[in-house]
Amino acid sequence: MQKTLPLIATLAALAAWPAAAQDVAAPVEAAAAVSADVAYIFNTLLFLIGGFLVMWMAAGFAMLEAGLVRSKNVTTQLFKNISLFAIAGIMYWLIGYNLMYPGDWTVTGYIGELFSPKAIDPVGAGLAEDGYSAASDFFFQLMFCATTASIVSGTLAERVKLWPFLIFTVVLTALIYPIEASWQWGGGFLSEMGFSDFAGSALVHAAGGFAALAGAIVLGARTGKYRADGRMQPMPGSNLALATLGTFILWLGWFGFNGASQLAIGSVNDAADVSRIFVNTNMAASAGAVAAIIVTQLVYGKIDLTMVLNGALAGLVSITAEPLTPSIFAAILIGGVGGAIAVFVVPMLDRMKIDDVVGAIPVHLVAGIWGTMIVPATNDGTSFATQFIGILCIGGFVFVVSFVFWSILKATTGIRVSQEAEISGLDISEMGMEAYPDFVQAK
Amino acid sequence: MQKTLPLIATLAALAAWPAAAQDVAAPVEAAAAVSADVAYIFNTLLFLIGGFLVMWMAAGFAMLEAGLVRSKNVTTQLFKNISLFAIAGIMYWLIGYNLMYPGDWTVTGYIGELFSPKAIDPVGAGLAEDGYSAASDFFFQLMFCATTASIVSGTLAERVKLWPFLIFTVVLTALIYPIEASWQWGGGFLSEMGFSDFAGSALVHAAGGFAALAGAIVLGARTGKYRADGRMQPMPGSNLALATLGTFILWLGWFGFNGASQLAIGSVNDAADVSRIFVNTNMAASAGAVAAIIVTQLVYGKIDLTMVLNGALAGLVSITAEPLTPSIFAAILIGGVGGAIAVFVVPMLDRMKIDDVVGAIPVHLVAGIWGTMIVPATNDGTSFATQFIGILCIGGFVFVVSFVFWSILKATTGIRVSQEAEISGLDISEMGMEAYPDFVQAK
Amino acid sequence: MQKTLPLIATLAALAAWPAAAQDVAAPVEAAAAVSADVAYIFNTLLFLIGGFLVMWMAAGFAMLEAGLVRSKNVTTQLFKNISLFAIAGIMYWLIGYNLMYPGDWTVTGYIGELFSPKAIDPVGAGLAEDGYSAASDFFFQLMFCATTASIVSGTLAERVKLWPFLIFTVVLTALIYPIEASWQWGGGFLSEMGFSDFAGSALVHAAGGFAALAGAIVLGARTGKYRADGRMQPMPGSNLALATLGTFILWLGWFGFNGASQLAIGSVNDAADVSRIFVNTNMAASAGAVAAIIVTQLVYGKIDLTMVLNGALAGLVSITAEPLTPSIFAAILIGGVGGAIAVFVVPMLDRMKIDDVVGAIPVHLVAGIWGTMIVPATNDGTSFATQFIGILCIGGFVFVVSFVFWSILKATTGIRVSQEAEISGLDISEMGMEAYPDFVQAK
Repeated sequence: MQKTLPLIATLAALAAWPAAAQDVAAPVEAAAAVSADVAYIFNTLLFLIGGFLVMWMAAGFAMLEAGLVRSKNVTTQLFKNISLFAIAGIMYWLIGYNLMYPGDWTVTGYIGELFSPKAIDPVGAGLAEDGYSAASDFFFQLMFCATTASIVSGTLAERVKLWPFLIFTVVLTALIYPIEASWQWGGGFLSEMGFSDFAGSALVHAAGGFAALAGAIVLGARTGKYRADGRMQPMPGSNLALATLGTFILWLGWFGFNGASQLAIGSVNDAADVSRIFVNTNMAASAGAVAAIIVTQLVYGKIDLTMVLNGALAGLVSITAEPLTPSIFAAILIGGVGGAIAVFVVPMLDRMKIDDVVGAIPVHLVAGIWGTMIVPATNDGTSFATQFIGILCIGGFVFVVSFVFWSILKATTGIRVSQEAEISGLDISEMGMEAYPDFVQAK
Repeated sequence: MQKTLPLIATLAALAAWPAAAQDVAAPVEAAAAVSADVAYIFNTLLFLIGGFLVMWMAAGFAMLEAGLVRSKNVTTQLFKNISLFAIAGIMYWLIGYNLMYPGDWTVTGYIGELFSPKAIDPVGAGLAEDGYSAASDFFFQLMFCATTASIVSGTLAERVKLWPFLIFTVVLTALIYPIEASWQWGGGFLSEMGFSDFAGSALVHAAGGFAALAGAIVLGARTGKYRADGRMQPMPGSNLALATLGTFILWLGWFGFNGASQLAIGSVNDAADVSRIFVNTNMAASAGAVAAIIVTQLVYGKIDLTMVLNGALAGLVSITAEPLTPSIFAAILIGGVGGAIAVFVVPMLDRMKIDDVVGAIPVHLVAGIWGTMIVPATNDGTSFATQFIGILCIGGFVFVVSFVFWSILKATTGIRVSQEAEISGLDISEMGMEAYPDFVQAK
Repeated sequence: MQKTLPLIATLAALAAWPAAAQDVAAPVEAAAAVSADVAYIFNTLLFLIGGFLVMWMAAGFAMLEAGLVRSKNVTTQLFKNISLFAIAGIMYWLIGYNLMYPGDWTVTGYIGELFSPKAIDPVGAGLAEDGYSAASDFFFQLMFCATTASIVSGTLAERVKLWPFLIFTVVLTALIYPIEASWQWGGGFLSEMGFSDFAGSALVHAAGGFAALAGAIVLGARTGKYRADGRMQPMPGSNLALATLGTFILWLGWFGFNGASQLAIGSVNDAADVSRIFVNTNMAASAGAVAAIIVTQLVYGKIDLTMVLNGALAGLVSITAEPLTPSIFAAILIGGVGGAIAVFVVPMLDRMKIDDVVGAIPVHLVAGIWGTMIVPATNDGTSFATQFIGILCIGGFVFVVSFVFWSILKATTGIRVSQEAEISGLDISEMGMEAYPDFVQAK
């Protein structure tokens, strides 16, 4: 009799075995599988690790850009990179996140709840049924917003005024990025159309590139860059060690960018998929670099290090729209073509007199479009037409709004430093602080 | 009959269902929850990831300080940073760890067991009931000890002798830090009083700052820094790219510093709390940077990059005492005030002729006190009085012992290089090796 | 009656309880333990985290080497480091991985399956019984192959031609490394003999060092390095900040290198062992640095920063053959001796006129041999004789094949730039691009 009670209790309990096991005959699988709590922790950990890796990309952009500008503009470029990251954090929390995920909108509307935003659970009150911590997701998503802003700063280097740049960053991170990203990741019309952009070749990289392109057109080229005789004045970067370091940082951070965009690692399949993504991401970057080595050797007769760096980055951007479905060989092709494209687009931009100091437009905009358009080659659920429409919408919106906003800034505050300030360098004219005061400067 | 035996065995087994399920009727929750083994692995992973992120902060301090000293002292500053990290590892193992956690003291006493310290389990013999691997905890705690030492090196740059600095590092990492940290984290009198310092605004950052302040007073200012006419001679840092890189590294590492100080991620609640901490940490840093941008623009009429870097770091230090309980908005306020404080304290120190080369005292000491004092604003279980007493005890102990020790070193070995050595630079005089021998130096 | 059916189903299911629980009476332990799915995710996560940390080491080598060459060769050194990493990725996938793990060989043989290599599971089709994701393992193993190639580039700096170096990298990463590593990690004759090399003191570091040594001998010393009067011309590194940063990066990456070489973190014992490895790795590095501080102070009367950096790295290499079994104290001894060895080997190489620009031979080859030979002191299952045979086989094979291959390249394409090119610097002669064009160069 003593044994009867636990028996009945046991049976009742087993009959109520939770969701994962759909009938009581399957406790074996239930035990083998991952409980909701454990999956929650794994998924949260993925967002946190992915998030800190993408945060690290902000340092990568800072080093890449500081290395590719002339030494008289390094302090300013460093400042822009750390300040845009700080601003992105605050604006994305204040406005962007609630704007991007309309399901989270509150009655008070578009600027979110200032004092108790939904992005963060009460202390000690995570809910396993959420699947992951809301704060970890916010942390991860914020870093994508900041990345979009980072892309803009390099293109406009060496002549843009500080405060107008910061104001544009506020608008980009609070409004422009969240609105267009919402169309896909917030469940908007692009996602309903079947548009596919796994980790943001279009939504982050091309979008950042379009904002940069609009700025570059409104702002104009650096003084002396395109000479009267039709030739281009080389303005070589001041520190290729920093530029290479920045590229390695971005390469590293991209494992978080693409890998954690799987959004889950709480099951065997998700863990295997995240691993696939890591491998494809690395292979596309490798192929982009190798393509740039070969192309610059063949076309220019010499390997160009900055092109190799941009080739690796273009490979990374290219695979970002779909790092999961390609085979390794396909990832190599996608990344390799992306790397080659970047090399060819650089002189095309110069012919159009669009002055992109660090090559962000070839790398992020053009390779981003390439990566987005090639998704249907490996992912059956997508179509070229839809991908094209997606790019048109994202690009049209971001370019037009950015163009209008840069134009308004130009007409009001002005966006360009004086020619004297540009020649003496923004570090002296805008910030009053040299980056390398101890080293004697050439010229 | 054949089925009877397994039936009884099953029932017996289920009746003995482990701790997590408190009665046999609850296997459902038991299956949903996290087993002790899985929690052990998660917690250990948190310490390891947190530990390597905090280890990386040592590189951040090295880059920050190498960027903020003049080029003639860079080799020396790099050496001090890597050697203090190496020394911290050995001294904390040899003496510090056992001193900090009295429960782990052995009969042989204060210097631990040289040949079989408790910090490490036998090969293949982890114990799930410990909750985490002892070695992972040791690894994590060690990095905090090393961080405390890193804070000191920047303040005393450009004039302190190498070996006395290394000897002070030995004392700090073996004795001073472990003793004061033991008062709170070793279960000592501060923790019994109800003092609250989540990840070490006071125990690590203010403590390091107090040791630096004592050293700066005993050592005196750099030759020529405070001129006879009452004005200050600017001595700008030689490489702001490195300083910015260092700040980004520290910002990244701080996610480990604060996040892993939750000490557990083996439950849904802990995972949600770690995520909260990541978000608040990032927001405080962002707010610190933005506050410094605004304050320097308003007060000096120009944005000062080094102040922005220190503002971000001060924001990080400020939130470290309590990164869990504040709302995001509160974290922004705490970090923003911290960043503003750092900007205002720099000229105050100069008026007192306390020469702090990298601004470690405003960032780590003053913002550390601010962060510690503001804890009761968001954490109900604490009081301003207790926080104040805690800072008095930590500050008093660290400052007095450091002051006495620096004074003894000054009276015996001497702690300051000769004036000629200082003018020619420590790299030549102390190390015989320039950091940038190929670049022609200004002046 | 209603209760009978689930009862029988339950019993049947419990009778089939999976591997972890060996009899049906043990569901208690099964619940406490880690399910196969959860272990799979943990193990995969270990490979991914370990893999990205080792990937980061490629940046560490780039910075270390860029900092230790003269400024006129920095661009070239940066290029070699990023391109070798890209090439390693592609060659290891195309040929190396299938060559290294013969169990994975396909009928088509030695170059693997180009279009569907086994390294990657189909989308959404991970298998819990594999224990970890194949792609995560491939990702991790690839990084070891790339590390081996990174070791070679530093030694041959400042005089080797670009394309022959890249061709050698292709051979090293496609054939030489995979073949010798297969002898141990692919289940080959060394592993059957009982050779022990936990994370690759011999298989990665000494192997890279032997390839570098062969190259250095065939290539010859830099012009002017060993003067006619028998004295050595100092050729100091151009940027010790980068060299120190590189060392910190390598130190950080090594936690992944050694820690994830445990290959599993899906049980309490594995998690405890990974933590042990982290601690021992850190302690050996610390001890290597401290040993170099003491030895250079005693022998040369001044502390030499580059020696301290190499001391830390030699400590890391030394512990890599066996980071698990040593006590912390033993790890300190092993690392400390390794650091001291590195300091003493540098002048020995110079006496033999073997010109190793960054000290890769003392650090990776000599300390790698030391680490491999000392394994039996802490690991009972090994013998000095077997360790010695292992080194002879690995070293003989790698050295001879590398020597032959460098000689063939020398006889065909040539491997050395002209003397004029060497004097003007490879950045101008080989790449047409200076690393620091804005700074006036000394001399």
